[in-house]
Amino acid sequence: MYEQLTGYINNKIKVSEDELKIILSFFKPLKLKKNEFLVSQRQTSQRTFFVGKGCLRIFFINEEGQEATRYFAFENLFATALVSFITGETSDEFIQAVEASEILYITHDDFYLLLEKVPQWEKFYRYYLENAYVNNTKRLMSFLTKDAAEKYRELLSESPFIVKRLPNKMVASYLNISQETLSRVKSRI
Amino acid sequence: MYEQLTGYINNKIKVSEDELKIILSFFKPLKLKKNEFLVSQRQTSQRTFFVGKGCLRIFFINEEGQEATRYFAFENLFATALVSFITGETSDEFIQAVEASEILYITHDDFYLLLEKVPQWEKFYRYYLENAYVNNTKRLMSFLTKDAAEKYRELLSESPFIVKRLPNKMVASYLNISQETLSRVKSRI
Repeated sequence: MYEQLTGYINNKIKVSEDELKIILSFFKPLKLKKNEFLVSQRQTSQRTFFVGKGCLRIFFINEEGQEATRYFAFENLFATALVSFITGETSDEFIQAVEASEILYITHDDFYLLLEKVPQWEKFYRYYLENAYVNNTKRLMSFLTKDAAEKYRELLSESPFIVKRLPNKMVASYLNISQETLSRVKSRI
Repeated sequence: MYEQLTGYINNKIKVSEDELKIILSFFKPLKLKKNEFLVSQRQTSQRTFFVGKGCLRIFFINEEGQEATRYFAFENLFATALVSFITGETSDEFIQAVEASEILYITHDDFYLLLEKVPQWEKFYRYYLENAYVNNTKRLMSFLTKDAAEKYRELLSESPFIVKRLPNKMVASYLNISQETLSRVKSRI
């Protein structure tokens, strides 16, 4: 798993071997059972997660009281409830393992310590934040501006593996629509 | 206006006088008429704006074809259509002056040049991105998870000046509800 993380980091920033050792030393491994929660309601998210194997999902409860999934983090992706991670406030988002998963995590304090210890980590975090801002805004905007068929077509073209790998219930929650609506949309395409 | 920007920057990061001069030299002044657009549909947002006087609003078109306002930037605040600024893609967001306004702008290229020239600018951008992520996510989540009355009560407690300073039409678009719904909610509170 540390090799995967090393690959991810080297892909983003240039660090010396010593700096890489410091960075990796801050990440701890964790195994999760299917459906296990990393962050549940009214908790703060004080860690950021890197997925080595499996899948995490980040979701919230929408106006109708249904689960709406903002993000699936498959292998070699980072995930956290970032608002809570940044502010230290309790989280409106939940994080759950969708499959049995193996992950690495870094705490908020260690993450910010790295910003002081390793100058390139500031650039790493810049890419992280830019990427998070773009992805998150596009996701939430798609909930607010697109109808069910549009959202499903977009999913098929951009992330077909979500439809292939995950059950219908998860796909529906990712589109913020009911399972019935998803069936109707599928039958028309 | 440059004094206001200097105050804003000194409040966030520690820079030398020389560095401050470099930073300020990248910002250019611009006067806007009421209702003038800085970014309209299908344009890219290649500048970031600092409001010296007046008010900018950032909005998008929702599922029902109505304008939904994500953000009002009053005096001493930065604003841009950040997804487009980061990615260079055409913008789903529009930027318009709500009042006659005086602003400073910096281009995307100059902004990124500053990241190389002034090390502290990386930290400035970090605060900028963290703040943008938190505010934007909270705003869009509030559209997705709260009803009209909840959103109006929250607005009154967190940003009463929006209700005082701007016309009802703008307030309704900020809550992503119709003017009729806004009137109904107001009469009940």
